[in-house]
Amino acid sequence: MLIPRRDIEFQVFEVVEAEALCARERYAAHDRATLDEVLGSARRLAEERFLPYAALTDVHEPELVDGRVRIAPEARVALRELGEAGFIAAPFDAEVGGLQVPQVVNQACNALFASAHVGFHGYSMLTQGVANVIRVFGSDEQRRRYLPGLLEGRFFGTMCLSEPHAGSSLADIRSRAEPLPGGLYAIRGDKMWISGGEHELSDNIIHLVLAKVPGGPPGVKGISLFIVPRYRVGPDGGLGADNDVRLTGLNHKMGWRGTVNTALAFGPNGECLGERIGEEHRGLASMFQLMNEARIGVGVCSVALGYAGYMNALAYARDRLQGRPLGQRDPSTPQVPILRHADVRRMLLAQKSWVEGGLALELYCARLMDDLATARDAGEGARLHGLVELLTPIAKSWPSEFCLEANKLAIQVLGGAGYTRDYPVERLYRDNRLNHIHEGAYGIHGLDLLGRKVPQDGGAALAALAALVRETIAAARSDGSFSQEADQLDQALGGIDAATRRVLGAMAKGEAERALANATVYLEAVGHVVVAWRWLEQARVATRALGTAGAADRAFYEGKQAACRFFFRHELPRVGPQLALVASLDETPLLMPDEGF
Amino acid sequence: MLIPRRDIEFQVFEVVEAEALCARERYAAHDRATLDEVLGSARRLAEERFLPYAALTDVHEPELVDGRVRIAPEARVALRELGEAGFIAAPFDAEVGGLQVPQVVNQACNALFASAHVGFHGYSMLTQGVANVIRVFGSDEQRRRYLPGLLEGRFFGTMCLSEPHAGSSLADIRSRAEPLPGGLYAIRGDKMWISGGEHELSDNIIHLVLAKVPGGPPGVKGISLFIVPRYRVGPDGGLGADNDVRLTGLNHKMGWRGTVNTALAFGPNGECLGERIGEEHRGLASMFQLMNEARIGVGVCSVALGYAGYMNALAYARDRLQGRPLGQRDPSTPQVPILRHADVRRMLLAQKSWVEGGLALELYCARLMDDLATARDAGEGARLHGLVELLTPIAKSWPSEFCLEANKLAIQVLGGAGYTRDYPVERLYRDNRLNHIHEGAYGIHGLDLLGRKVPQDGGAALAALAALVRETIAAARSDGSFSQEADQLDQALGGIDAATRRVLGAMAKGEAERALANATVYLEAVGHVVVAWRWLEQARVATRALGTAGAADRAFYEGKQAACRFFFRHELPRVGPQLALVASLDETPLLMPDEGF
Repeated sequence: MLIPRRDIEFQVFEVVEAEALCARERYAAHDRATLDEVLGSARRLAEERFLPYAALTDVHEPELVDGRVRIAPEARVALRELGEAGFIAAPFDAEVGGLQVPQVVNQACNALFASAHVGFHGYSMLTQGVANVIRVFGSDEQRRRYLPGLLEGRFFGTMCLSEPHAGSSLADIRSRAEPLPGGLYAIRGDKMWISGGEHELSDNIIHLVLAKVPGGPPGVKGISLFIVPRYRVGPDGGLGADNDVRLTGLNHKMGWRGTVNTALAFGPNGECLGERIGEEHRGLASMFQLMNEARIGVGVCSVALGYAGYMNALAYARDRLQGRPLGQRDPSTPQVPILRHADVRRMLLAQKSWVEGGLALELYCARLMDDLATARDAGEGARLHGLVELLTPIAKSWPSEFCLEANKLAIQVLGGAGYTRDYPVERLYRDNRLNHIHEGAYGIHGLDLLGRKVPQDGGAALAALAALVRETIAAARSDGSFSQEADQLDQALGGIDAATRRVLGAMAKGEAERALANATVYLEAVGHVVVAWRWLEQARVATRALGTAGAADRAFYEGKQAACRFFFRHELPRVGPQLALVASLDETPLLMPDEGF
Repeated sequence: MLIPRRDIEFQVFEVVEAEALCARERYAAHDRATLDEVLGSARRLAEERFLPYAALTDVHEPELVDGRVRIAPEARVALRELGEAGFIAAPFDAEVGGLQVPQVVNQACNALFASAHVGFHGYSMLTQGVANVIRVFGSDEQRRRYLPGLLEGRFFGTMCLSEPHAGSSLADIRSRAEPLPGGLYAIRGDKMWISGGEHELSDNIIHLVLAKVPGGPPGVKGISLFIVPRYRVGPDGGLGADNDVRLTGLNHKMGWRGTVNTALAFGPNGECLGERIGEEHRGLASMFQLMNEARIGVGVCSVALGYAGYMNALAYARDRLQGRPLGQRDPSTPQVPILRHADVRRMLLAQKSWVEGGLALELYCARLMDDLATARDAGEGARLHGLVELLTPIAKSWPSEFCLEANKLAIQVLGGAGYTRDYPVERLYRDNRLNHIHEGAYGIHGLDLLGRKVPQDGGAALAALAALVRETIAAARSDGSFSQEADQLDQALGGIDAATRRVLGAMAKGEAERALANATVYLEAVGHVVVAWRWLEQARVATRALGTAGAADRAFYEGKQAACRFFFRHELPRVGPQLALVASLDETPLLMPDEGF
């Protein structure tokens, strides 16, 4: 089941106020009606071409037949329609063939596609990411050559970072790029965990490959980035010869089986050509440009999967009759829908608080990206860029934990039925487990947040975030209806501040390992505080709207208020002990002997 | 990978002191050597006959072929050897053919089998449970007829409670038992979620079936319990005619696929005979006797699956070279095993603290059962019985949450590899997800603990538990080495007391629904406190042993100390906010409108 229309409307238009963006030059071609139309057609496409095949591609995962990857043919149909309808091109500049749709709407569409079929959506997410790197770092010629195919969905993209011996440790990649006369490079190396690495769904596959040019510095500073198509592409975008990229294996995953995952050999016959993109030895920075957007994209997928589980659990809880209220012991009275049981309500409200909170987080990040794309001056741009950078590890990681937890509870609401393959909730749970791992594992994002994003620029980004949160706190206090939550959020912000100071103090003393030993816990706690903030904003918007809401909307807004209260009462309190732990610089795991495990 | 020998030894002999039991008459036939032999032969059998087929039966799950359930033939071999070696009979009285092995050793064996192949183990777990009900509630004739087959593993058992329209709500079951002349009953009805309901692994299947005798009171008070064999059994135990129990469907599960799960029709042709066991209309109480043991058995399975995941993750972390320590940025230095990375250590230590803490919890419950079986007088028996009853929902539920969390982190340690079906960690995660659901869903146990076990007998059981915990606290304070942890545990005990008083106060005022709305949170918090207590005991034992330990044992005991510290620093603090929430009698989920979800 998809994310419901009413919440998309609320979050896109009432909370992050997408319509207001249309007053800006970049989005002037749009108005509420065109944005509604974009969202409506995404929903239709997701419902008709994505959702019906989610179970099918889980059972019939991609397989190797006569050296080719066979994927359910419905994938090709769905993705061709998606490309033709402009959903890959949506957020791109008009000058490269895009539609200049705001990111808030683009990401809402992505959430709809991912909630319907995350496996199909994976191809388009990667393709948007690759197109974005080429847009930003490519030469004019590279843009002309590759962007039309990518934006129209005739070419799909991949990101080739990991190698069999180096997953998270990019310093150790061994792929080589030898410069050739004429400016091209001969690419050679093995890549691992490549989603969308080989298939027949599109006319071509455009790999973005990290490799080292001989003579460069060792480690991450010697990495360059290359465009390596499966079939060579002429200046006009026409397809040429096979480019010697070979499938060496398929990975068989627990879930997310609709997106093929591959091991690839580049240039096993010495015939693989790549074009360098961006500066030599500066490839990782360019790739991270892609990674930032892809990471928010992964966050959107986590949210969408959790949300789909919640919708299924809710529908089941409304329908399934079983048991009676606690006070009612007379077995001759009729059974009630399980939605009436306190613990089922608790589990559903927990799911609601995680998935709607997660969606609010992702769309807030998308809004920041829209603001960044339309920043008035360099100062505002720098502040917004810092915020996006700071929030990216959270937007990627928080939903991968808590929307997975939502999937776990969705199974629980269904009970034994939820554990069978007759219902989608177990598949959604399996699908979502990937999001902890790809696009940078959970722990890597903890280090990214606490070791890099928080200290950089003298802590400017965290200060900017705290200032925004304090604005909401002040506003909620003056509104009055959520002033207790405002106080709680203020206190949590104080906890972040104290923990951060302790960690930065230890880092300043050269105790980096100890200081960062609980970076993952910090990531989780800060994520909870940020989501609590977005819940307080949702509750404020709902409370204002309730004043004039019609009967149909009242329950919706009251549900938002309840979910906000729930998050503050059941969820936010966990950050107290977490931040205290971070501040304690606990190093129990470091101090024990290896043989003690 | 199995639970390692050293920890089994530590937990069975050093912590719950199984050898001391041999001084009691019931266990006088055993000594340390025979108990070691039992554990050793369980390990061999688990390694040779269980573990090699865990992946196989996941891929080739039970299927219906020509109306019969086809299961990998290795299951039959493994289970026959298990029965012949006496592992089903182990804990039973010698007079019925048992070996009077203490439960601490029996459950340790079960943990070994479950860590090797939980699907195969499922059959033997159910069979022990069914045999136990017949031992306790059966007539002499029923014992003679059924126990030999069950204890020797020629007959397997099942528990038939749920029906298609009634999972957790047993008051609403519709299965009927019509008395026939001669004392037998004609059984008719549909049962759902029956593990081991149909197969060819044993000569016969003995179903324990809940059904209603016409004319009885409505609801749970009108339920009786019946022995319903697949093939009728003569007085001598010989097999007779088919008893009209028909397979109506197989459930296809996310995991735990080695145990077939079925829907059954009893008496579709009116030819199904059952023997009543125990008193008429008192069937549920008898079944709950079985449930208590089965529930501890489920806890053991959760622990075993989490432990197997931890062992796999640990082995991987020791082998897999990747990255460098935080301070070391020189990429020409060799990569280190990922065990050296702080966040990997944190994840491994978290797993260790959960799975070894969980094992300690289960073996403590087993020890209580041994003490109960050898209680000197009625007063001691009542106290022990109350403790077992109080701890059962915790022993069942706590590991289903936290050892599943361990499985989640085991995947994370392996990264992308962990998400593929090339490694067992994803299967273990899928297998373990069932344990939240079967033998009473998680929320049901929260209600059982807070709504029934805590208030009963004026709170005697909780008071008895608190007294035991305080003994450990006092001892730890006088030892000195874990006095900070002792203080923390004392404070947590105070939190339980305060929350319990608030809840019981609300119940006394007739506000049961509100009082119990957060029973699941209470269950989780009390579980954490109990496990913290068992960790403190493990740490005390380890600290004492360190005084004289040889080199090989030092790291083992230091690991125990570290895991205890970790649990107190990283885990126990979460109970503060949880118990505060319970004490607040929060009813946010109850107050929101149904349409607000």
